[in-house]
Amino acid sequence: MKTILDNGYVELIETWGSDERIIEAARMSTGKGFIGWGPRFEQVPSRLPSGGMTTKEVPGDEKLLAYLYNNKHSTPFEMAGMIIEVKAPIFVFREWHRHRTQSYNEMSARYIPLPDENYLPSVERMVEGSKATGNKQAQGSKELNEADATVWLNQLDTLYKYAQSVYERGIQFGVPKELARLPVPVARYSRMRASANLRNWIAFLTLRDHHAAQWEIRQYAKAVGELVAKHFPRTYSLYLTEKYDVQKA
Amino acid sequence: MKTILDNGYVELIETWGSDERIIEAARMSTGKGFIGWGPRFEQVPSRLPSGGMTTKEVPGDEKLLAYLYNNKHSTPFEMAGMIIEVKAPIFVFREWHRHRTQSYNEMSARYIPLPDENYLPSVERMVEGSKATGNKQAQGSKELNEADATVWLNQLDTLYKYAQSVYERGIQFGVPKELARLPVPVARYSRMRASANLRNWIAFLTLRDHHAAQWEIRQYAKAVGELVAKHFPRTYSLYLTEKYDVQKA
Amino acid sequence: MKTILDNGYVELIETWGSDERIIEAARMSTGKGFIGWGPRFEQVPSRLPSGGMTTKEVPGDEKLLAYLYNNKHSTPFEMAGMIIEVKAPIFVFREWHRHRTQSYNEMSARYIPLPDENYLPSVERMVEGSKATGNKQAQGSKELNEADATVWLNQLDTLYKYAQSVYERGIQFGVPKELARLPVPVARYSRMRASANLRNWIAFLTLRDHHAAQWEIRQYAKAVGELVAKHFPRTYSLYLTEKYDVQKA
Amino acid sequence: MKTILDNGYVELIETWGSDERIIEAARMSTGKGFIGWGPRFEQVPSRLPSGGMTTKEVPGDEKLLAYLYNNKHSTPFEMAGMIIEVKAPIFVFREWHRHRTQSYNEMSARYIPLPDENYLPSVERMVEGSKATGNKQAQGSKELNEADATVWLNQLDTLYKYAQSVYERGIQFGVPKELARLPVPVARYSRMRASANLRNWIAFLTLRDHHAAQWEIRQYAKAVGELVAKHFPRTYSLYLTEKYDVQKA
Repeated sequence: MKTILDNGYVELIETWGSDERIIEAARMSTGKGFIGWGPRFEQVPSRLPSGGMTTKEVPGDEKLLAYLYNNKHSTPFEMAGMIIEVKAPIFVFREWHRHRTQSYNEMSARYIPLPDENYLPSVERMVEGSKATGNKQAQGSKELNEADATVWLNQLDTLYKYAQSVYERGIQFGVPKELARLPVPVARYSRMRASANLRNWIAFLTLRDHHAAQWEIRQYAKAVGELVAKHFPRTYSLYLTEKYDVQKA
Repeated sequence: MKTILDNGYVELIETWGSDERIIEAARMSTGKGFIGWGPRFEQVPSRLPSGGMTTKEVPGDEKLLAYLYNNKHSTPFEMAGMIIEVKAPIFVFREWHRHRTQSYNEMSARYIPLPDENYLPSVERMVEGSKATGNKQAQGSKELNEADATVWLNQLDTLYKYAQSVYERGIQFGVPKELARLPVPVARYSRMRASANLRNWIAFLTLRDHHAAQWEIRQYAKAVGELVAKHFPRTYSLYLTEKYDVQKA
Repeated sequence: MKTILDNGYVELIETWGSDERIIEAARMSTGKGFIGWGPRFEQVPSRLPSGGMTTKEVPGDEKLLAYLYNNKHSTPFEMAGMIIEVKAPIFVFREWHRHRTQSYNEMSARYIPLPDENYLPSVERMVEGSKATGNKQAQGSKELNEADATVWLNQLDTLYKYAQSVYERGIQFGVPKELARLPVPVARYSRMRASANLRNWIAFLTLRDHHAAQWEIRQYAKAVGELVAKHFPRTYSLYLTEKYDVQKA
Repeated sequence: MKTILDNGYVELIETWGSDERIIEAARMSTGKGFIGWGPRFEQVPSRLPSGGMTTKEVPGDEKLLAYLYNNKHSTPFEMAGMIIEVKAPIFVFREWHRHRTQSYNEMSARYIPLPDENYLPSVERMVEGSKATGNKQAQGSKELNEADATVWLNQLDTLYKYAQSVYERGIQFGVPKELARLPVPVARYSRMRASANLRNWIAFLTLRDHHAAQWEIRQYAKAVGELVAKHFPRTYSLYLTEKYDVQKA
């Protein structure tokens, strides 16, 4: 289990399929199966005048996997997948749930009191975010300094406490949970399970492990990327290669 | 434009297709088109010993439409659709966005300051919600009275103002907008466009214009239902019939 | 591997998730996990005047699973799934591929010669199909007898051979494979892998393991049903109960 | 209505949305609407020492549309769409239906006799296809000549007639339509309605109006492209630019 931000995590529940299964599925079109990763050495007739046999290095199925990936033959990558459990602030889930090809089951504030945990960014994250020039739309007009960041974090923390007290007071008064949650800030942590096939996890990484994505969701995307790297190493490597090629271009 | 809750709305942007188009699409399977709504009167041979012709009442295409609807032949209902603009609190959008067959474009707090508008329920809504026995999970343990509801709404309003002041202070300090929004409560209003085909609007109504849905999203579902009723009256009527049949069963 | 029709099969490649995982995912909404299938016996305070403790039978998580299934809370059923390999005639695949929530990788006649295997129905199937009164649209006007069925099957077999000879002649002439396939009948067998989550396999069964579905695809649906029954027995049992309830109603 | 191949067509049924609506939807994120296509001329303060006002050319919303398109901000392109009617051979529909984001209603051979129309390619198409070196997988080993092509087309035409006679004989015998269709070749024409949003029509064009796609479906994709060009000219122009950029790269 990988801790993310101050109170979040990404935890693997289950994977299915593999880099090999992707090859198998792609080979349905030609009726063959998975042959093997390479390179391997085959005996082939020599081209030398002396004739005889010679050893030749031939690529294995990594060549087909790369061909599929780079030419957007994406359907074989739907033959593998991954389910994870995620704890993240609501504003992160709001971005995440725009990915309509994933399956979700989330904690519901209609049914249980939300745990009193809220995201408090670090001073460093805030100051760096303010400096960032790559994403002017997301910036305030002035550059944030450490002292002001600290002051603001104190105000934020007080706000979180006040919001929680309003929530609890509501419950005591008999306000239905589904309304008592109105003061809850978008920084509040929630939890969910998310399932997707590998094609769609790669699509998630492409958008969210990206410099234009908000720093917070990028931390989650990085954790997803580590799980993909572990369980589908050859596909992840092709994703990385494409990512850095795009950045160079 | 239909006003919903205290500050929200549902506004029609555009529709496509029609009840007639649904019939046309369904008739692709048999090579015929839309014939006409009925009943109509046709001249048919009389069964009387005296022979001759007689007038018979025959149903029109409403019979086919009902057959399609009631037997879950749903694909023809994908040949019509509707785009709307919606202003609603974030907690309503959180439920709405679980419908993964709709298309969404929403205002983003990463790019613009969110308007300072938050949902304040009425005392009546709160007290009724507390009384409701149909949805015990969503209730607090105690029954809410009007005096406590009024006290709580004042606390809630104060929380909204405090959250907004923390937001504005953050912007002044130079906190990036994407972080300055952390104190924003889930009661804050946002806006979006949503598009779906008629099959999926009906699925939305089935879940959200339903007694188990939270009262707030039901108000939006009712407004969606009115638009469906106006533009696809025969399909909407079949939806209503099914709805009340299910309730009776 | 289950043989279907004369030359087809359904073979399990892989499953993920389980009836237990579905419960776990559903419990995300309330923050609890899988507790256990029941019934189980708990010690509870006795209601007898003599007081003391007594043993009570309480239902296990099968009650929640049934509640989810019967009330169309479908998303937890997306947290499990199955990949199969299928060999079936093209006209069966044509119906199958209308299920847009599955992932497919199919053999392609653009790239390899299709194996020369075509579906020849049994005389019994043909005669029964002709008798069937439940689906008048699919019938010819006259009732088929065994002698005519046998004659027709001979004609059909001759047609298959002729179609294959035209295909092979084309290849010899240098006609591209993608055009040489033009004479191939819709009875020709092809192969594919298909992946879907459990929610969507149940939707497939509901439509295709159904008396209104063509007999041939029903045989495939039955084989899919047997795999679902083996790997997700409690969910399958709920599907069966609903199926026979609908038939009774 | 655009005639395609020997007996096919693509016919527009309806469009919704527009290039302008796409801008409107994208502007939801910042709370603004459609401003106007440009360039337009604005009065701005002069930078000259003499001061005063001067006229400046500023780009219109085509700049935003290009930004959205080129940076894969695809959701606003879901706010427009198109429904068409298509007549094409079965093997073309087999490729088409792999696009799972479209809605389909097709003629069904279970319910009506299929019209006796089959695709006969031209000699030119066959010979060109055989010569093509860009797609070796789709080629036979030998190069086709015109004389052999003509011979083969005669054989193919005879096969079509024979298949039809087996079909008709079956119907006369009382073979159910759903089985009588077994001899029908994949070259047989069928008809359907297809609906998709603009994002998904562009995805269709990207794959099917492409040199790696089979020539026959490319003719349909070109017709789809002409409809997109007419009704969403600015989006189509961005598609074309990307297409030729990719080819140059």
